[in-house]
Amino acid sequence: MKNFAVLGTGVVGNTIGTKLINLGYAVMMGSRTADNEKAQSWVEKNGDKASAGTFADAAAFGEVVFNCTKGEHSLDVFRMAGLENFKGKTIIDIANPLDFSQGMPPSLIPTLTNTNSLGEEIQKLLPEANVVKTLNIVNCEVMVDAKKSGGDPTMFLSGNNSEAKAEVTDILSQFNWTDIIDLGDITTARGTEMLLPIWIRTWMATGNGYFAFKIVR
Amino acid sequence: MKNFAVLGTGVVGNTIGTKLINLGYAVMMGSRTADNEKAQSWVEKNGDKASAGTFADAAAFGEVVFNCTKGEHSLDVFRMAGLENFKGKTIIDIANPLDFSQGMPPSLIPTLTNTNSLGEEIQKLLPEANVVKTLNIVNCEVMVDAKKSGGDPTMFLSGNNSEAKAEVTDILSQFNWTDIIDLGDITTARGTEMLLPIWIRTWMATGNGYFAFKIVR
Repeated sequence: MKNFAVLGTGVVGNTIGTKLINLGYAVMMGSRTADNEKAQSWVEKNGDKASAGTFADAAAFGEVVFNCTKGEHSLDVFRMAGLENFKGKTIIDIANPLDFSQGMPPSLIPTLTNTNSLGEEIQKLLPEANVVKTLNIVNCEVMVDAKKSGGDPTMFLSGNNSEAKAEVTDILSQFNWTDIIDLGDITTARGTEMLLPIWIRTWMATGNGYFAFKIVR
Repeated sequence: MKNFAVLGTGVVGNTIGTKLINLGYAVMMGSRTADNEKAQSWVEKNGDKASAGTFADAAAFGEVVFNCTKGEHSLDVFRMAGLENFKGKTIIDIANPLDFSQGMPPSLIPTLTNTNSLGEEIQKLLPEANVVKTLNIVNCEVMVDAKKSGGDPTMFLSGNNSEAKAEVTDILSQFNWTDIIDLGDITTARGTEMLLPIWIRTWMATGNGYFAFKIVR
C-alpha cells in the first residue's frame, strides 16, 4: 500500500488523514513546524500508522500527496516543502483559491480563476509531478464519504496524466464515489474551482452543507 | 395570460418562443430590425399568437421578457429596446457572458464574472424592472423541458424581487422543473453564470449536451 502525505492540519487535512488511516494507509501530516500541536494531537488519536513532520518531511514520506492547505497559501507550501520532494508523485489538489479580501461570501482569487486555476499553477510549479484536481467541490465529510450527501453524486477529475487519474479514481472509490467524470487535462480545474461560488450560495440558501453536485444525464 | 417578449432570434429564442406559444401565450420576438428573416420565419410557423418586431416593439408588448440574446450583446440590446419599455416588468435573464476572444473553449467576460455578473449589470441598467437569472445552465431544449436531461435536476433562481421570482417559478414548473432553489438576490447570479465552464467541459468530456445539474441533498 502506498504512503500518503497530507499537507495541512486544519479540519480538511484532519478528516482526509483520518479516513486514510481508517482505510489502512500510513499517513504523515505536514505543517510549517515539526512540533505543530494540531498535527501531534491528530497523531495521538490515530495510532502507529499516523505520523507528523514538516511539509518537507511529509512530502518526502508520501508517494501520494493530498493538498489540504488553504488555496491562498498552497503555492507557498509546495515551495516550502521543497519542489524536488514531489518528483514523479501524484498530487491530489483539493484546495480552492478563495479570496476573502472583499468580505463574505468569498470570491475567487482573480489571477487564479476564469482563464487560470490553482490546479494549473501547482502543476506549473511541479512539472515533474502529476497534479489531479478533485474533491474540492464538497465539504470534507462528503469528500471522504460521498453517501453523506444523501445520494449518488458526481465527482470530477482534472489532470494531465492518465495513470495518476486512475490512481485517484481508486482512492475516490474508497471514499464511496461511484459516478466519476474525467474532464480532461488540468486546465479543466477552472471549471471545478468555479463551482465554489454556487456551492457557497447553495449552502447559504439551504443552510445545509451536506450536499453534492450530480450531473443528471 | 401574460404576454411575453423574446429578445433574440437564435436557437435559444426560437426554442423558448415556440414553447411559450405551445403553452398558449402570445409572444413577440424582438430583433434589431422589424423585418428580420429568422423572426418572420418563426412567426409563420407559430400561428396567430406569434408576432415579431424590433427589440423596442417586443419590449413594449411583453409583460414578461426573456433575454435570449448573446451575453456579450445583452446590455446593448436592452439599451436599443428603450429602457423605459421594461419598467415594472419581469426580465428572465437566461444569457451567459461568454468570452470567445481567447479561443475555445470560451471563458467568461472578465468584468462580468467572479465579483460581478451579467444578471447584476442588467438589473443596474433597469433599476425599475425585476431581473431574475435562471435557466442559463442547461441547453435550450432542456430549459423548456427539464425531463430531457433524463432525470429531475435542480434549477436555481437569483433576483431581488420575490413576486417576480414566484412568477418565474410558475413558468419553470410549466417547463417541467420541479426542484428549484432560490439562491437569493441578483448577486447570486455570479454562481450560476460561473457554472458555464463546468457545463462546457462536461459537454466536451461526455459528448452529451442533454444533461443538467442536481443538488443531491
